[in-house]
Amino acid sequence: MPVTHSDTVARVNYSEIDAMGVVYHSRYAVWLDVARTEHLRQAGMTYRELEAMGFFLVVGDLTMRYHRPARYDDLVQVRCWVRELASRRVTFAYRLTHAETGALLVSAETRMLSLNHKFEPTRLPAEVAALLHPVGDPA
Amino acid sequence: MPVTHSDTVARVNYSEIDAMGVVYHSRYAVWLDVARTEHLRQAGMTYRELEAMGFFLVVGDLTMRYHRPARYDDLVQVRCWVRELASRRVTFAYRLTHAETGALLVSAETRMLSLNHKFEPTRLPAEVAALLHPVGDPA
Amino acid sequence: MPVTHSDTVARVNYSEIDAMGVVYHSRYAVWLDVARTEHLRQAGMTYRELEAMGFFLVVGDLTMRYHRPARYDDLVQVRCWVRELASRRVTFAYRLTHAETGALLVSAETRMLSLNHKFEPTRLPAEVAALLHPVGDPA
Amino acid sequence: MPVTHSDTVARVNYSEIDAMGVVYHSRYAVWLDVARTEHLRQAGMTYRELEAMGFFLVVGDLTMRYHRPARYDDLVQVRCWVRELASRRVTFAYRLTHAETGALLVSAETRMLSLNHKFEPTRLPAEVAALLHPVGDPA
Repeated sequence: MPVTHSDTVARVNYSEIDAMGVVYHSRYAVWLDVARTEHLRQAGMTYRELEAMGFFLVVGDLTMRYHRPARYDDLVQVRCWVRELASRRVTFAYRLTHAETGALLVSAETRMLSLNHKFEPTRLPAEVAALLHPVGDPA
Repeated sequence: MPVTHSDTVARVNYSEIDAMGVVYHSRYAVWLDVARTEHLRQAGMTYRELEAMGFFLVVGDLTMRYHRPARYDDLVQVRCWVRELASRRVTFAYRLTHAETGALLVSAETRMLSLNHKFEPTRLPAEVAALLHPVGDPA
Repeated sequence: MPVTHSDTVARVNYSEIDAMGVVYHSRYAVWLDVARTEHLRQAGMTYRELEAMGFFLVVGDLTMRYHRPARYDDLVQVRCWVRELASRRVTFAYRLTHAETGALLVSAETRMLSLNHKFEPTRLPAEVAALLHPVGDPA
Repeated sequence: MPVTHSDTVARVNYSEIDAMGVVYHSRYAVWLDVARTEHLRQAGMTYRELEAMGFFLVVGDLTMRYHRPARYDDLVQVRCWVRELASRRVTFAYRLTHAETGALLVSAETRMLSLNHKFEPTRLPAEVAALLHPVGDPA
């Protein structure tokens, strides 16, 4: 059965918060990276394997909208899904919520470009594309 | 004379690059933070003073488009300007270029929200708004 | 039964590695922080509660010895224990190993100082000290 | 004239501070990295050139002692010198002070190991060793 979306959970540590006691805004981007890596793993392939095949998926565009802040020691759930798939790129979307209250924290999107080992744009390998299923935004 | 745009320069250090030998995508957001802080300083006020007055400028939206990667030890110039100013928010735009070749690396935008000491939306203090001059995109 | 040592596991993500493809040396310090936080939680108190009581445990000394590098996507186990306990400080020790092979990666120590809400040295609260059990280095 | 010690200055940015409003302890390690890189550059060689020759200098041991915290927007001076030089390793020492008040913030040491392109211990190239002058602790 294809993976339509994935969920990962991160606990906010002390290195991630700033003087306002909330997560510094750029750090959410690391959780997005972890989320799409786990999404790929659940779909049947690790990003390490993809690189070993001579391919890279790099971020071409990043957008993040901050709704509410996450605080120290909070558990944050990152829901991740494929929003669009084209021959040379794939767009992942994300919704970050407070794991206990369900409150919406951040919504985000990354458009990833497929590159070969010379860092030139290239078609996604067929066996990778086959694992990525674009879906509408999940509940 | 009003500050229309500002330029800061950062040298890429080893902690900022990843296994592809290029700057990890989230780290550019820290340079944007430094750039708007220096912009404010050149305009006549430090962000430290703003917080001491009981105000915060927090990131409500972040967008980054990655054109070319910066590499280890490169000097990166960050041009920063005010794109829009409203009573409770200000939008900064950024263009990151390779300081020696002038090649475009990243274009970015952050929409900042003005909050009071209870983290509620509030009008930007008049003396701060007076320092921020929206301009068209500089050359 | 007192907690004598704790184990946490971290998976190496892309933001943590450098151009040599291995974890950048300063990042292990964040895992130490997470490890002692989880140690305290398993012992019966969260660090968030400690701060709410008006106390801080801050790092006074940090030492890390790097034996072997951790690589992207590796699972790293962090064993943590209390090496020494005094009225105003506590020393945590750590052993980081590759979770699958058991290979030793890093050995580390942090001497933590107890501060009050004015950041002055102060005695550890009795109920916190009661949860911290100095032990010899575990196997 | 040989370089006996070097000075670099870093301004504390918002991403580097934590909920106590002071620099998170692991971040000083990045400034040490920048300091020894600039030390090498002032001595006549860039670390980029060293890697291009097929050599790496990796951290084998790190120790940091925290005396006083650096705060947001502070200017921090990092004094760096070579404490010891051996055929396969070099020890850098560091003293971090508040640039305006001169107050001692952190004292640190990193023992660096010389590795070849297969990450095996190897002698420092003669032309690199010739640039590194062990000195007593500077004033």
